[in-house]
Amino acid sequence: MKIALAQLNYTIGAFEENAEKIILAIRKARQEKAALVVFSELAICGYPPLDLLEHKSFVAKCECHLNHIAAECHGIAAIVGGPSVNPNPLGKNLYNSAFFIANGSVQRVINKTLLPTYDIFDEYRYFEQNTNFSLINYKGFNIAVTICEDLWYNQPILTGFGKNRLYGVCPMEQLAGLCPDFVINIAASPFSYMQGEIKAGILKENADKYKVPVYYVNQVGAHAELIFDGGSMVVYPQGFIRHMKLFTEDFMVFDTGEVAGLPDETVYYNPSGGMEMVHDALVLGIKDYFGKSGLKAALLGLSGGIDSAVTLVLATRALGPTNVRVLLMPSQYSSDHSVNDAVALARNLGVRYDIIDIRDIYSQYTQSLGPVFKGLHADLTEENIQARIRGNLLMAVSNKYGSILLNTSNKSEAAVGYGTLYGDMSGGLSVLGDVYKTDVYRLAGFINRDKEIIPLNTITKAPSAELRPDQKDSDSLPEYDKLDRILFNYIEMKKPVDEIIQMGLDREVVEKTIRMVNHNEYKRYQTPPILRISSKAFGSGRRMPLVARYD
Amino acid sequence: MKIALAQLNYTIGAFEENAEKIILAIRKARQEKAALVVFSELAICGYPPLDLLEHKSFVAKCECHLNHIAAECHGIAAIVGGPSVNPNPLGKNLYNSAFFIANGSVQRVINKTLLPTYDIFDEYRYFEQNTNFSLINYKGFNIAVTICEDLWYNQPILTGFGKNRLYGVCPMEQLAGLCPDFVINIAASPFSYMQGEIKAGILKENADKYKVPVYYVNQVGAHAELIFDGGSMVVYPQGFIRHMKLFTEDFMVFDTGEVAGLPDETVYYNPSGGMEMVHDALVLGIKDYFGKSGLKAALLGLSGGIDSAVTLVLATRALGPTNVRVLLMPSQYSSDHSVNDAVALARNLGVRYDIIDIRDIYSQYTQSLGPVFKGLHADLTEENIQARIRGNLLMAVSNKYGSILLNTSNKSEAAVGYGTLYGDMSGGLSVLGDVYKTDVYRLAGFINRDKEIIPLNTITKAPSAELRPDQKDSDSLPEYDKLDRILFNYIEMKKPVDEIIQMGLDREVVEKTIRMVNHNEYKRYQTPPILRISSKAFGSGRRMPLVARYD
Repeated sequence: MKIALAQLNYTIGAFEENAEKIILAIRKARQEKAALVVFSELAICGYPPLDLLEHKSFVAKCECHLNHIAAECHGIAAIVGGPSVNPNPLGKNLYNSAFFIANGSVQRVINKTLLPTYDIFDEYRYFEQNTNFSLINYKGFNIAVTICEDLWYNQPILTGFGKNRLYGVCPMEQLAGLCPDFVINIAASPFSYMQGEIKAGILKENADKYKVPVYYVNQVGAHAELIFDGGSMVVYPQGFIRHMKLFTEDFMVFDTGEVAGLPDETVYYNPSGGMEMVHDALVLGIKDYFGKSGLKAALLGLSGGIDSAVTLVLATRALGPTNVRVLLMPSQYSSDHSVNDAVALARNLGVRYDIIDIRDIYSQYTQSLGPVFKGLHADLTEENIQARIRGNLLMAVSNKYGSILLNTSNKSEAAVGYGTLYGDMSGGLSVLGDVYKTDVYRLAGFINRDKEIIPLNTITKAPSAELRPDQKDSDSLPEYDKLDRILFNYIEMKKPVDEIIQMGLDREVVEKTIRMVNHNEYKRYQTPPILRISSKAFGSGRRMPLVARYD
Repeated sequence: MKIALAQLNYTIGAFEENAEKIILAIRKARQEKAALVVFSELAICGYPPLDLLEHKSFVAKCECHLNHIAAECHGIAAIVGGPSVNPNPLGKNLYNSAFFIANGSVQRVINKTLLPTYDIFDEYRYFEQNTNFSLINYKGFNIAVTICEDLWYNQPILTGFGKNRLYGVCPMEQLAGLCPDFVINIAASPFSYMQGEIKAGILKENADKYKVPVYYVNQVGAHAELIFDGGSMVVYPQGFIRHMKLFTEDFMVFDTGEVAGLPDETVYYNPSGGMEMVHDALVLGIKDYFGKSGLKAALLGLSGGIDSAVTLVLATRALGPTNVRVLLMPSQYSSDHSVNDAVALARNLGVRYDIIDIRDIYSQYTQSLGPVFKGLHADLTEENIQARIRGNLLMAVSNKYGSILLNTSNKSEAAVGYGTLYGDMSGGLSVLGDVYKTDVYRLAGFINRDKEIIPLNTITKAPSAELRPDQKDSDSLPEYDKLDRILFNYIEMKKPVDEIIQMGLDREVVEKTIRMVNHNEYKRYQTPPILRISSKAFGSGRRMPLVARYD
């Protein structure tokens, strides 16, 4: 039997567009003689719809478009993800369902058993858990249909509480007892550079343990924070893996009788050095944020430093150079080379730049504030005023020209609060807010791997906010390699202070860093959505109390 | 038997302070001859600790302080809430537990069954669900110990999906079969002006149905968004209710043999007209935000309008007039009476005010932006520049004097995006962000009920942002009484567009309003935490996708 896997890019709530994409793929699959075509989790409405699921009218639209899709399924069957109303008067309103469609109507509804409710996932907020297990029989094949997390019973748990399994029930154990010929897994599994190897490993483990091929269809595309990488695959027992494309739509047809003979194409993400996937993820993240919101043009402040340089390259690749413009806003503390480096980069990329000197505005602020600040010394206040003047100028150009401000802060800064709220922390989308400073350097290296796109001076000079004479980031922060090591172990790995110190780091530095992380929750609360590329990004996946004692 | 109910104000993560409060209450209860003293849900660490629960060291501190508390329990028993580690290798790390302590050690651990995972609640993110039911026998009494939501099996469900029960299991049904003499419910149930009547009703329903008295202990105090009102109570079958204090700590001892004879003190919140509770809730919200964060002083921009006037009164009541200061920042578009009204209010309240005219700064911006804006007409951009100049000035004074900026936007504005990001939408805490404009007027009326604290002119004049000549809110928005009716039915009640129109509202106005709500998610994403007083506030309880098609 031929099975088509359709890896598509959906928009949340864009029912007509999503249904049209699905219907076109059904037609294509039928043309290519597939007997079954498989789509991803919650494909009809896009994932994650969040609290839109609490609106009855939203769910009604899902049902309506499911019927349109079903009407197309003649001479072919389809498996499509969408919400379904829980018919039991007890429990949550909905199930997270896979609809098995044949002969023009929904034949079976399979519901998700394991509902991820951690990090960025909130599925138990909306969905009731499935407790019944059965196979679908189609054209003589017994098919086990599972939904994303259902295959993740064996996922590794890093919490330090000595747990080995997150869930009390293993759906595959139940389904394997019914002797399926193969497993379908429809998913909406977001990208994280740490996750690729784990994902392939989990699918392979299932294929090996239960001696069945697994056909896995993931969503591709981004919705604000979350970037879905696609990378759908067929995993055959004893190790065969065939990947579909990453970060773009793809469509492949597999013959169940032939897949075992195909060559292994196992590709693992390389979390240590390989910045290519992070680069591609961020470009897709920017592209979909704009495209799916009906926006075209971006704007950012180009300082001559590495963060805004990398952000600009990514934005230009996502939106095209004619849709991106930059402002250079030097002050008395800006070095000449900063302006020169920024101009050089803008020219390399062919984006429009304007220069607005902020000195006159700044001196007007100090004059107007004079009576209120009388007798007080200059301090961080004056640095923040400059950053907020730049924020106001950027937003003014953004408002006037309808272009969206991209935020250029990195994860290390966001973590320790090294940035000015309403100043350099402004923007509609944070591009690098989940990329540690040391990885921003790696990204710059990847961008420059063939030729010098980002001026070398931008990469080699010591990082500085240039808000007072001769300022360096290292005046206020530990060196970035140390800082990032502490942050990664605290934020991603949730290690206690003492364990981090035992890794050979200075107690004082570790304690100071963690104190800075905790005391800056209030700043991060108001930052733009951050493109997520790690297993623990700031944003909806990390929920810390704002008012709390941390030590 | 005498039972003491200790309604205390905890700080999240402040283990030593929380434990000390608990220990002092144990001593007091013992002095007053109580045999049992009851504390609220997760009392040891404060509620809600959110992702701090994922840190092993945080849970270890809870255990450590539980042992200190237990050591105090001689000659008296206590029931205290805290997290406990799930000993099963499968499932979530923790239980949400009630520890029954006697003779110096924990005798029994009762775990929470119903884990609210909706609105602001994320309990299934952290906790495993209890499935075993038993009573505690103490001094000849059989006690059913329940935790907050465990008694809420019968809660009304407003989702429109035709559900009648959110959960598949009813803990009280299980416990009632074991014939308890009374029920203890330890809770952390946040205030909402719509919830008071429901809460008392739910407790009464349980008391009546199972023919047992219910002793209910709620947390009091605020943590950023959430305000816990206390209002602990004893509910006796056939209608007797005795309330403890609202919005402040309280301690009462009840004799189980005598409570039936006490007079009924049932007090329901009055959601329609009574603004007293909202007033008290907001004052507590401000007070605890500052006090628990180690902050003292607040700052806000006083425009002469009603929102900033009401915010200032609340701040002054929470922090004292010497800890609050205001900036008046008139422009060429400010009316004289705006400045006069603002000065009059500041004088009425005895708070320091400074006046900074923004005209010179504004004209410097237009000059510096001149070349970039050449040939383009004035539009919203120029209005936003003014709002952001004010934001920058407020943050400058905030930075210089270490006072926290209070945001003065109301819920109606936040809903439709009538505000400037990084301008008037700035601040560390939004005081009125869950109060509709029409309710801000009611609050002002309540504040002025005895004498004119807020100048009458501030209340009677037409609302205006004063960002262009003769501007009125009604130029851009529907009249507030209509607007608020639409917003309430869409946001709180989640009614579909057509149902709202059927309430007698104009289709065009309804559709435009709802479009504005949906298209301004991006602005709300970056607003300060909002003090929650309704059943559906903007913030962590309402999770909408940022990139989505809504229509």
